[in-house]
Amino acid sequence: MKIEVFFSPAAVDELGMRGRNVVIIDVLRATTSICTALRNGAREVIPAPDIENATKISSNLSSDAQLLGGERQGKKIDGFDLGNSPAEYTSEKVTGKTIIFSTTNGAGAIYRCRYASTALIASFVNMSAIVQTVVEIGGTWTILCSGRQGSFSVEDATCAGMIISQVQALTGVDIEDAGLTALILYKNFRKNILSMLKKSLHGKYLISIGSGDDLALCADVDSVPVVPVMSGLSVKLKYAVPETVPKTDQPA
Amino acid sequence: MKIEVFFSPAAVDELGMRGRNVVIIDVLRATTSICTALRNGAREVIPAPDIENATKISSNLSSDAQLLGGERQGKKIDGFDLGNSPAEYTSEKVTGKTIIFSTTNGAGAIYRCRYASTALIASFVNMSAIVQTVVEIGGTWTILCSGRQGSFSVEDATCAGMIISQVQALTGVDIEDAGLTALILYKNFRKNILSMLKKSLHGKYLISIGSGDDLALCADVDSVPVVPVMSGLSVKLKYAVPETVPKTDQPA
Repeated sequence: MKIEVFFSPAAVDELGMRGRNVVIIDVLRATTSICTALRNGAREVIPAPDIENATKISSNLSSDAQLLGGERQGKKIDGFDLGNSPAEYTSEKVTGKTIIFSTTNGAGAIYRCRYASTALIASFVNMSAIVQTVVEIGGTWTILCSGRQGSFSVEDATCAGMIISQVQALTGVDIEDAGLTALILYKNFRKNILSMLKKSLHGKYLISIGSGDDLALCADVDSVPVVPVMSGLSVKLKYAVPETVPKTDQPA
Repeated sequence: MKIEVFFSPAAVDELGMRGRNVVIIDVLRATTSICTALRNGAREVIPAPDIENATKISSNLSSDAQLLGGERQGKKIDGFDLGNSPAEYTSEKVTGKTIIFSTTNGAGAIYRCRYASTALIASFVNMSAIVQTVVEIGGTWTILCSGRQGSFSVEDATCAGMIISQVQALTGVDIEDAGLTALILYKNFRKNILSMLKKSLHGKYLISIGSGDDLALCADVDSVPVVPVMSGLSVKLKYAVPETVPKTDQPA
Protein backbone atom coordinates (compact mmCIF):
# COMPACT_ATOMS: atom_id res chain seq x y z
CA MET A 1 0.00 0.00 0.00
CA LYS A 2 0.92 3.63 -0.32
CA ILE A 3 -0.23 6.50 1.91
CA GLU A 4 0.38 10.16 1.09
CA VAL A 5 -0.26 12.83 3.73
CA PHE A 6 -1.18 16.49 3.23
CA PHE A 7 -0.79 18.55 6.40
CA SER A 8 -3.31 21.15 5.22
CA PRO A 9 -5.67 21.66 2.31
CA ALA A 10 -3.70 24.78 1.18
CA ALA A 11 -2.06 23.01 -1.76
CA VAL A 12 -5.12 20.85 -2.53
CA ASP A 13 -8.25 21.47 -4.58
CA GLU A 14 -11.26 19.36 -5.55
CA LEU A 15 -9.76 18.40 -8.91
CA GLY A 16 -6.52 17.27 -7.27
CA MET A 17 -8.56 15.03 -4.95
CA ARG A 18 -10.76 13.70 -7.76
CA GLY A 19 -10.64 9.92 -8.10
CA ARG A 20 -8.48 9.41 -5.01
CA ASN A 21 -9.12 7.32 -1.92
CA VAL A 22 -9.04 9.93 0.82
CA VAL A 23 -9.23 10.03 4.62
CA ILE A 24 -10.11 13.48 5.99
CA ILE A 25 -9.11 14.43 9.55
CA ASP A 26 -10.15 17.35 11.76
CA VAL A 27 -9.69 16.04 15.29
CA LEU A 28 -10.64 19.36 16.96
CA ARG A 29 -13.51 19.02 16.34
CA ALA A 30 -15.34 18.62 13.03
CA THR A 31 -14.60 14.98 12.20
CA THR A 32 -15.06 13.94 15.83
CA SER A 33 -18.48 15.64 15.85
CA ILE A 34 -19.51 14.07 12.53
CA CYS A 35 -18.67 10.59 13.84
CA THR A 36 -20.64 11.31 17.00
CA ALA A 37 -23.69 12.69 15.15
CA LEU A 38 -23.90 9.68 12.83
CA ARG A 39 -23.32 7.17 15.63
CA ASN A 40 -26.16 8.89 17.53
CA GLY A 41 -28.60 8.43 14.68
CA ALA A 42 -28.29 11.44 12.38
CA ARG A 43 -29.48 10.52 8.89
CA GLU A 44 -26.61 12.31 7.17
CA VAL A 45 -24.18 15.22 7.50
CA ILE A 46 -23.82 17.67 4.60
CA PRO A 47 -20.58 19.67 4.79
CA ALA A 48 -21.03 23.26 3.67
CA PRO A 49 -17.96 25.32 2.77
CA ASP A 50 -19.53 28.58 3.99
CA ILE A 51 -22.59 29.93 5.78
CA GLU A 52 -24.28 31.14 2.58
CA ASN A 53 -23.98 27.67 1.13
CA ALA A 54 -25.34 26.12 4.36
CA THR A 55 -28.38 28.40 4.27
CA LYS A 56 -29.01 27.56 0.64
CA ILE A 57 -28.95 23.80 1.33
CA SER A 58 -31.17 24.36 4.35
CA SER A 59 -33.82 26.18 2.31
CA ASN A 60 -34.37 23.02 0.24
CA LEU A 61 -35.13 20.82 3.25
CA SER A 62 -38.18 20.77 5.50
CA SER A 63 -37.39 22.48 8.77
CA ASP A 64 -38.21 19.52 11.03
CA ALA A 65 -35.90 17.20 9.08
CA GLN A 66 -32.77 19.27 9.50
CA LEU A 67 -30.37 20.92 11.91
CA LEU A 68 -27.79 23.59 11.13
CA GLY A 69 -24.51 22.93 12.91
CA GLY A 70 -21.04 24.39 12.97
CA GLU A 71 -18.76 27.14 14.23
CA ARG A 72 -16.80 30.24 13.51
CA GLN A 73 -13.87 30.96 15.86
CA GLY A 74 -14.91 27.84 17.75
CA LYS A 75 -18.35 29.25 18.66
CA LYS A 76 -21.84 28.38 17.42
CA ILE A 77 -22.88 30.40 14.38
CA ASP A 78 -25.71 32.91 14.99
CA GLY A 79 -29.03 31.36 14.02
CA PHE A 80 -27.63 27.82 13.86
CA ASP A 81 -29.07 24.98 15.99
CA LEU A 82 -25.81 23.42 17.15
CA GLY A 83 -22.14 24.35 17.51
CA ASN A 84 -19.14 22.10 16.84
CA SER A 85 -18.88 20.24 20.15
CA PRO A 86 -19.34 16.47 19.86
CA ALA A 87 -21.20 16.67 23.18
CA GLU A 88 -24.04 18.60 21.49
CA TYR A 89 -24.76 15.88 18.93
CA THR A 90 -26.88 13.69 21.24
CA SER A 91 -29.42 11.06 20.12
CA GLU A 92 -32.21 13.27 21.45
CA LYS A 93 -31.21 16.05 19.12
CA VAL A 94 -29.94 14.37 15.98
CA THR A 95 -31.84 11.12 15.45
CA GLY A 96 -33.23 10.99 11.92
CA LYS A 97 -32.03 14.49 11.07
CA THR A 98 -29.96 15.86 8.21
CA ILE A 99 -27.17 17.98 9.73
CA ILE A 100 -25.98 20.82 7.52
CA PHE A 101 -22.51 21.41 8.87
CA SER A 102 -20.23 24.39 8.35
CA THR A 103 -16.92 24.74 10.18
CA THR A 104 -13.78 26.81 9.59
CA ASN A 105 -11.43 24.02 8.51
CA GLY A 106 -12.94 20.53 8.53
CA ALA A 107 -16.13 21.09 6.55
CA GLY A 108 -14.16 22.86 3.81
CA ALA A 109 -11.58 20.06 3.68
CA ILE A 110 -14.33 17.45 3.35
CA TYR A 111 -16.07 19.53 0.67
CA ARG A 112 -12.85 19.56 -1.36
CA CYS A 113 -13.04 15.76 -1.48
CA ARG A 114 -16.50 15.62 -3.06
CA TYR A 115 -15.10 14.13 -6.28
CA ALA A 116 -12.89 11.60 -4.49
CA SER A 117 -13.33 7.93 -5.29
CA THR A 118 -13.70 7.12 -1.58
CA ALA A 119 -13.80 9.79 1.14
CA LEU A 120 -13.74 8.61 4.77
CA ILE A 121 -14.15 10.84 7.83
CA ALA A 122 -11.61 10.05 10.54
CA SER A 123 -10.60 11.06 14.02
CA PHE A 124 -9.09 9.37 17.06
CA VAL A 125 -12.60 8.25 18.07
CA ASN A 126 -13.00 5.94 15.06
CA MET A 127 -9.35 4.98 14.51
CA SER A 128 -9.58 1.17 14.27
CA ALA A 129 -12.70 1.26 12.10
CA ILE A 130 -10.97 3.59 9.62
CA VAL A 131 -7.76 1.56 9.60
CA GLN A 132 -9.66 -1.65 8.91
CA THR A 133 -11.51 -0.04 6.00
CA VAL A 134 -8.37 1.47 4.51
CA VAL A 135 -6.58 -1.89 4.62
CA GLU A 136 -9.60 -3.73 3.19
CA ILE A 137 -9.73 -1.43 0.18
CA GLY A 138 -5.92 -1.28 -0.10
CA GLY A 139 -4.08 0.47 -2.91
CA THR A 140 -3.11 4.12 -2.65
CA TRP A 141 -4.56 6.51 -0.06
CA THR A 142 -4.33 10.20 0.67
CA ILE A 143 -4.75 11.48 4.22
CA LEU A 144 -5.91 15.09 4.17
CA CYS A 145 -5.41 16.97 7.45
CA SER A 146 -7.74 19.95 7.81
CA GLY A 147 -5.15 21.97 9.72
CA ARG A 148 -5.89 25.48 10.86
CA GLN A 149 -6.57 28.21 8.31
CA GLY A 150 -4.31 26.67 5.70
CA SER A 151 -1.56 25.89 8.18
CA PHE A 152 -0.32 22.87 10.06
CA SER A 153 -2.01 21.48 13.16
CA VAL A 154 -0.26 18.96 15.36
CA GLU A 155 -3.41 17.05 16.37
CA ASP A 156 -4.43 16.21 12.81
CA ALA A 157 -0.87 15.23 11.86
CA THR A 158 -0.57 12.99 14.94
CA CYS A 159 -3.90 11.32 14.06
CA ALA A 160 -2.57 10.72 10.52
CA GLY A 161 0.52 9.16 12.09
CA MET A 162 -1.63 6.83 14.20
CA ILE A 163 -3.49 5.67 11.09
CA ILE A 164 -0.17 4.95 9.35
CA SER A 165 1.20 3.17 12.41
CA GLN A 166 -1.87 0.91 12.66
CA VAL A 167 -1.93 0.20 8.91
CA GLN A 168 1.80 -0.67 9.11
CA ALA A 169 0.98 -3.23 11.80
CA LEU A 170 -1.24 -5.01 9.23
CA THR A 171 0.55 -4.56 5.92
CA GLY A 172 3.50 -2.88 4.21
CA VAL A 173 3.04 0.84 3.55
CA ASP A 174 5.08 3.24 1.42
CA ILE A 175 5.20 6.73 2.91
CA GLU A 176 7.02 9.95 2.03
CA ASP A 177 8.24 12.97 4.01
CA ALA A 178 4.92 14.04 5.51
CA GLY A 179 3.87 10.47 6.35
CA LEU A 180 7.23 9.83 8.01
CA THR A 181 6.85 13.02 10.04
CA ALA A 182 3.29 12.10 11.06
CA LEU A 183 4.55 8.72 12.23
CA ILE A 184 7.38 10.29 14.26
CA LEU A 185 4.85 12.68 15.85
CA TYR A 186 2.51 9.82 16.74
CA LYS A 187 5.35 7.82 18.29
CA ASN A 188 6.25 10.89 20.33
CA PHE A 189 2.70 11.46 21.62
CA ARG A 190 1.21 7.95 21.59
CA LYS A 191 1.24 7.57 25.35
CA ASN A 192 -0.81 10.67 25.94
CA ILE A 193 -3.02 11.91 23.14
CA LEU A 194 -5.01 14.14 25.52
CA SER A 195 -1.87 15.91 26.70
CA MET A 196 -0.90 16.54 23.04
CA LEU A 197 -4.35 18.07 22.42
CA LYS A 198 -3.90 20.32 25.43
CA LYS A 199 -0.53 21.51 24.07
CA SER A 200 -1.89 22.15 20.57
CA LEU A 201 -2.64 25.69 19.46
CA HIS A 202 -6.29 24.93 18.79
CA GLY A 203 -6.64 22.90 21.98
CA LYS A 204 -5.39 25.87 23.99
CA TYR A 205 -7.83 28.10 22.15
CA LEU A 206 -10.77 25.78 22.91
CA ILE A 207 -9.80 25.74 26.59
CA SER A 208 -9.67 29.56 26.54
CA ILE A 209 -13.25 29.82 25.23
CA GLY A 210 -14.62 27.32 27.76
CA SER A 211 -14.74 24.29 25.46
CA GLY A 212 -11.88 22.43 27.13
CA ASP A 213 -14.11 19.49 28.08
CA ASP A 214 -14.31 18.57 24.41
CA LEU A 215 -10.62 17.63 24.36
CA ALA A 216 -11.16 14.46 26.37
CA LEU A 217 -13.98 13.41 24.02
CA CYS A 218 -11.75 14.05 20.98
CA ALA A 219 -8.85 12.07 22.51
CA ASP A 220 -10.94 8.98 23.33
CA VAL A 221 -9.53 6.46 20.84
CA ASP A 222 -12.09 4.02 19.35
CA SER A 223 -14.96 5.38 21.45
CA VAL A 224 -17.16 5.98 18.36
CA PRO A 225 -16.40 3.00 16.09
CA VAL A 226 -18.08 4.14 12.87
CA VAL A 227 -16.99 4.68 9.28
CA PRO A 228 -18.59 7.83 7.86
CA VAL A 229 -18.21 8.02 4.09
CA MET A 230 -19.07 10.81 1.70
CA SER A 231 -21.27 10.04 -1.26
CA GLY A 232 -22.22 12.98 -3.43
CA LEU A 233 -22.44 15.86 -0.99
CA SER A 234 -23.66 13.78 1.91
CA VAL A 235 -21.73 11.95 4.63
CA LYS A 236 -23.49 8.82 5.85
CA LEU A 237 -22.69 5.88 8.01
CA LYS A 238 -23.39 3.00 5.72
CA TYR A 239 -20.22 1.70 4.32
CA ALA A 240 -19.55 -1.26 2.11
CA VAL A 241 -16.29 -1.85 0.26
CA PRO A 242 -17.19 -0.87 -3.32
CA GLU A 243 -16.73 -3.73 -5.77
CA THR A 244 -15.25 -1.35 -8.31
CA VAL A 245 -12.28 -0.26 -6.21
CA PRO A 246 -9.17 -2.07 -7.43
CA LYS A 247 -7.91 -4.25 -4.60
CA THR A 248 -4.15 -4.07 -4.87
CA ASP A 249 -1.45 -4.68 -2.28
CA GLN A 250 -3.68 -6.68 0.03
CA PRO A 251 -2.35 -7.35 3.51
CA ALA A 252 -0.24 -10.48 3.74
CA MET B 1 11.33 35.27 21.73
CA LYS B 2 8.71 33.76 19.49
CA ILE B 3 9.31 31.58 16.41
CA GLU B 4 6.56 30.63 13.97
CA VAL B 5 7.20 27.94 11.33
CA PHE B 6 5.58 27.51 7.92
CA PHE B 7 6.25 24.10 6.38
CA SER B 8 5.70 25.40 2.86
CA PRO B 9 5.05 28.71 1.14
CA ALA B 10 1.60 27.49 -0.03
CA ALA B 11 -0.31 29.59 2.51
CA VAL B 12 2.15 32.51 2.35
CA ASP B 13 2.46 35.50 0.04
CA GLU B 14 4.72 38.54 -0.12
CA LEU B 15 2.25 40.74 1.73
CA GLY B 16 1.91 38.21 4.54
CA MET B 17 5.70 38.21 4.92
CA ARG B 18 5.96 42.02 4.74
CA GLY B 19 7.62 43.55 7.80
CA ARG B 20 8.49 40.20 9.37
CA ASN B 21 11.85 38.83 10.47
CA VAL B 22 12.16 35.71 8.32
CA VAL B 23 14.55 32.80 7.94
CA ILE B 24 14.16 30.96 4.62
CA ILE B 25 15.27 27.33 4.31
CA ASP B 26 15.78 25.09 1.27
CA VAL B 27 18.35 22.54 2.41
CA LEU B 28 18.24 20.56 -0.87
CA ARG B 29 19.75 22.64 -2.34
CA ALA B 30 19.02 26.31 -2.99
CA THR B 31 19.92 27.86 0.35
CA THR B 32 22.98 25.61 0.70
CA SER B 33 24.16 26.73 -2.74
CA ILE B 34 23.53 30.42 -1.98
CA CYS B 35 25.62 30.19 1.20
CA THR B 36 28.39 28.46 -0.73
CA ALA B 37 28.35 30.98 -3.62
CA LEU B 38 28.58 33.96 -1.26
CA ARG B 39 31.25 32.36 0.92
CA ASN B 40 33.24 31.71 -2.27
CA GLY B 41 33.18 35.36 -3.29
CA ALA B 42 30.05 35.94 -5.32
CA ARG B 43 29.06 39.61 -5.16
CA GLU B 44 25.35 38.86 -4.71
CA VAL B 45 22.62 36.35 -5.52
CA ILE B 46 19.38 37.58 -7.06
CA PRO B 47 16.53 35.07 -6.63
CA ALA B 48 14.26 34.92 -9.69
CA PRO B 49 10.81 33.34 -9.36
CA ASP B 50 10.85 32.04 -12.96
CA ILE B 51 13.10 31.72 -15.99
CA GLU B 52 11.50 34.67 -17.82
CA ASN B 53 12.20 36.88 -14.84
CA ALA B 54 15.80 35.58 -14.62
CA THR B 55 16.39 36.39 -18.28
CA LYS B 56 14.97 39.88 -17.83
CA ILE B 57 17.27 40.62 -14.88
CA SER B 58 20.19 39.18 -16.85
CA SER B 59 19.57 41.51 -19.80
CA ASN B 60 20.24 44.52 -17.55
CA LEU B 61 23.67 43.31 -16.44
CA SER B 62 26.93 43.13 -18.41
CA SER B 63 27.61 39.56 -19.42
CA ASP B 64 31.01 39.24 -17.73
CA ALA B 65 29.61 40.41 -14.38
CA GLN B 66 26.93 37.75 -14.08
CA LEU B 67 26.14 34.05 -14.04
CA LEU B 68 22.75 32.42 -14.49
CA GLY B 69 22.23 29.57 -12.03
CA GLY B 70 19.43 27.24 -11.05
CA GLU B 71 17.46 24.12 -11.86
CA ARG B 72 14.25 22.60 -13.04
CA GLN B 73 13.59 19.00 -11.92
CA GLY B 74 16.97 19.14 -10.21
CA LYS B 75 18.85 19.69 -13.48
CA LYS B 76 20.63 22.76 -14.90
CA ILE B 77 18.35 24.96 -16.96
CA ASP B 78 19.12 25.06 -20.71
CA GLY B 79 21.29 28.06 -21.50
CA PHE B 80 22.19 28.71 -17.84
CA ASP B 81 25.81 28.75 -16.62
CA LEU B 82 25.38 26.73 -13.44
CA GLY B 83 22.92 24.26 -11.92
CA ASN B 84 21.87 24.03 -8.28
CA SER B 85 24.70 21.96 -6.81
CA PRO B 86 26.72 23.74 -4.13
CA ALA B 87 29.81 22.01 -5.61
CA GLU B 88 29.47 24.11 -8.78
CA TYR B 89 29.70 27.44 -6.98
CA THR B 90 33.52 27.49 -6.67
CA SER B 91 35.68 30.58 -6.12
CA GLU B 92 37.06 30.21 -9.65
CA LYS B 93 33.60 30.53 -11.11
CA VAL B 94 31.75 32.93 -8.84
CA THR B 95 34.22 35.48 -7.42
CA GLY B 96 32.92 38.99 -8.01
CA LYS B 97 29.88 37.80 -9.97
CA THR B 98 26.19 38.51 -9.62
CA ILE B 99 24.38 35.16 -9.63
CA ILE B 100 20.85 35.28 -11.02
CA PHE B 101 19.31 32.25 -9.41
CA SER B 102 16.10 30.45 -10.31
CA THR B 103 15.07 27.19 -8.64
CA THR B 104 11.77 25.32 -8.28
CA ASN B 105 11.13 25.95 -4.59
CA GLY B 106 13.82 27.94 -2.78
CA ALA B 107 14.22 30.92 -5.10
CA GLY B 108 10.46 31.45 -5.13
CA ALA B 109 10.24 31.21 -1.34
CA ILE B 110 13.03 33.79 -0.97
CA TYR B 111 11.36 36.05 -3.54
CA ARG B 112 8.15 35.98 -1.48
CA CYS B 113 10.14 37.51 1.39
CA ARG B 114 11.30 40.58 -0.55
CA TYR B 115 9.25 42.92 1.64
CA ALA B 116 10.33 41.28 4.90
CA SER B 117 11.97 43.42 7.55
CA THR B 118 14.89 40.97 7.78
CA ALA B 119 15.28 37.94 5.47
CA LEU B 120 18.07 35.48 6.25
CA ILE B 121 19.06 32.51 4.10
CA ALA B 122 19.62 29.36 6.15
CA SER B 123 20.64 25.76 5.80
CA PHE B 124 22.49 23.21 7.92
CA VAL B 125 25.78 24.59 6.58
CA ASN B 126 25.35 27.98 8.29
CA MET B 127 23.33 26.88 11.33
CA SER B 128 25.25 28.52 14.19
CA ALA B 129 25.74 31.79 12.29
CA ILE B 130 21.99 32.03 11.67
CA VAL B 131 21.09 31.12 15.25
CA GLN B 132 23.44 33.75 16.62
CA THR B 133 21.94 36.42 14.34
CA VAL B 134 18.36 35.46 15.18
CA VAL B 135 19.07 35.64 18.92
CA GLU B 136 20.95 38.95 18.56
CA ILE B 137 18.00 40.56 16.83
CA GLY B 138 15.47 38.82 19.08
CA GLY B 139 11.73 39.47 19.00
CA THR B 140 9.44 37.46 16.73
CA TRP B 141 10.69 35.34 13.82
CA THR B 142 9.11 33.35 11.03
CA ILE B 143 10.88 30.31 9.60
CA LEU B 144 9.71 29.67 6.05
CA CYS B 145 10.46 26.19 4.71
CA SER B 146 10.56 26.05 0.93
CA GLY B 147 9.18 22.52 0.84
CA ARG B 148 8.52 20.76 -2.43
CA GLN B 149 5.96 22.16 -4.85
CA GLY B 150 3.80 23.60 -2.12
CA SER B 151 4.08 20.50 0.06
CA PHE B 152 6.03 19.46 3.11
CA SER B 153 9.67 18.39 2.98
CA VAL B 154 11.27 16.65 5.92
CA GLU B 155 14.76 18.14 5.44
CA ASP B 156 13.59 21.76 5.65
CA ALA B 157 11.38 21.02 8.66
CA THR B 158 14.25 19.24 10.44
CA CYS B 159 16.54 22.22 9.74
CA ALA B 160 13.87 24.53 11.21
CA GLY B 161 13.79 22.26 14.27
CA MET B 162 17.57 22.53 14.67
CA ILE B 163 17.35 26.33 14.58
CA ILE B 164 14.66 26.25 17.29
CA SER B 165 16.65 23.78 19.38
CA GLN B 166 19.78 25.95 19.24
CA VAL B 167 17.87 29.16 19.95
CA GLN B 168 16.20 27.41 22.92
CA ALA B 169 19.66 26.63 24.30
CA LEU B 170 20.33 30.40 24.45
CA THR B 171 16.97 31.93 25.36
CA GLY B 172 13.30 31.17 25.96
CA VAL B 173 11.26 30.62 22.79
CA ASP B 174 7.49 30.41 22.28
CA ILE B 175 6.56 27.94 19.54
CA GLU B 176 3.29 26.58 18.19
CA ASP B 177 2.25 23.34 16.48
CA ALA B 178 4.61 23.48 13.50
CA GLY B 179 7.58 24.60 15.61
CA LEU B 180 6.93 21.81 18.11
CA THR B 181 6.77 19.29 15.27
CA ALA B 182 10.00 20.63 13.73
CA LEU B 183 11.69 20.26 17.10
CA ILE B 184 10.45 16.66 17.52
CA LEU B 185 11.73 15.87 14.01
CA TYR B 186 15.13 17.37 14.75
CA LYS B 187 15.42 15.41 17.99
CA ASN B 188 14.57 12.27 16.04
CA PHE B 189 17.20 12.88 13.32
CA ARG B 190 19.86 14.90 15.16
CA LYS B 191 22.36 12.05 15.30
CA ASN B 192 22.37 11.54 11.56
CA ILE B 193 21.33 14.43 9.36
CA LEU B 194 22.83 12.80 6.27
CA SER B 195 20.79 9.65 6.76
CA MET B 196 17.64 11.81 7.04
CA LEU B 197 18.52 13.52 3.75
CA LYS B 198 18.97 10.12 2.11
CA LYS B 199 15.51 9.06 3.33
CA SER B 200 13.83 12.27 2.16
CA LEU B 201 11.78 12.30 -1.04
CA HIS B 202 13.95 14.95 -2.66
CA GLY B 203 17.16 13.35 -1.43
CA LYS B 204 16.13 10.07 -3.08
CA TYR B 205 15.32 11.98 -6.26
CA LEU B 206 18.73 13.70 -6.29
CA ILE B 207 20.44 10.33 -5.84
CA SER B 208 18.37 8.96 -8.76
CA ILE B 209 19.58 11.73 -11.11
CA GLY B 210 23.23 11.31 -10.13
CA SER B 211 23.44 14.26 -7.71
CA GLY B 212 23.70 12.14 -4.56
CA ASP B 213 27.13 13.55 -3.68
CA ASP B 214 25.46 16.87 -2.89
CA LEU B 215 23.68 15.35 0.13
CA ALA B 216 26.88 15.16 2.19
CA LEU B 217 27.65 18.81 1.37
CA CYS B 218 24.11 19.83 2.41
CA ALA B 219 24.35 17.84 5.67
CA ASP B 220 27.67 19.37 6.76
CA VAL B 221 26.58 21.48 9.73
CA ASP B 222 28.44 24.81 10.15
CA SER B 223 30.74 24.15 7.20
CA VAL B 224 29.85 27.48 5.53
CA PRO B 225 29.52 29.93 8.45
CA VAL B 226 27.95 32.91 6.67
CA VAL B 227 24.80 34.98 7.10
CA PRO B 228 23.27 35.80 3.71
CA VAL B 229 20.64 38.50 3.99
CA MET B 230 18.23 39.84 1.39
CA SER B 231 18.12 43.56 0.78
CA GLY B 232 15.85 44.72 -2.01
CA LEU B 233 16.00 41.90 -4.52
CA SER B 234 19.60 40.98 -3.80
CA VAL B 235 21.06 38.50 -1.29
CA LYS B 236 24.46 39.55 0.01
CA LEU B 237 26.83 38.44 2.70
CA LYS B 238 27.32 41.61 4.61
CA TYR B 239 25.22 41.55 7.67
CA ALA B 240 24.98 44.01 10.50
CA VAL B 241 22.17 44.01 13.05
CA PRO B 242 19.99 46.91 11.87
CA GLU B 243 19.64 49.62 14.51
CA THR B 244 15.97 49.99 13.64
CA VAL B 245 14.98 46.45 14.55
CA PRO B 246 13.32 46.48 17.97
CA LYS B 247 15.44 44.43 20.33
CA THR B 248 12.97 42.62 22.52
CA ASP B 249 13.30 39.45 24.53
CA GLN B 250 17.08 39.47 24.61
CA PRO B 251 18.76 36.30 25.82
CA ALA B 252 19.25 36.20 29.56
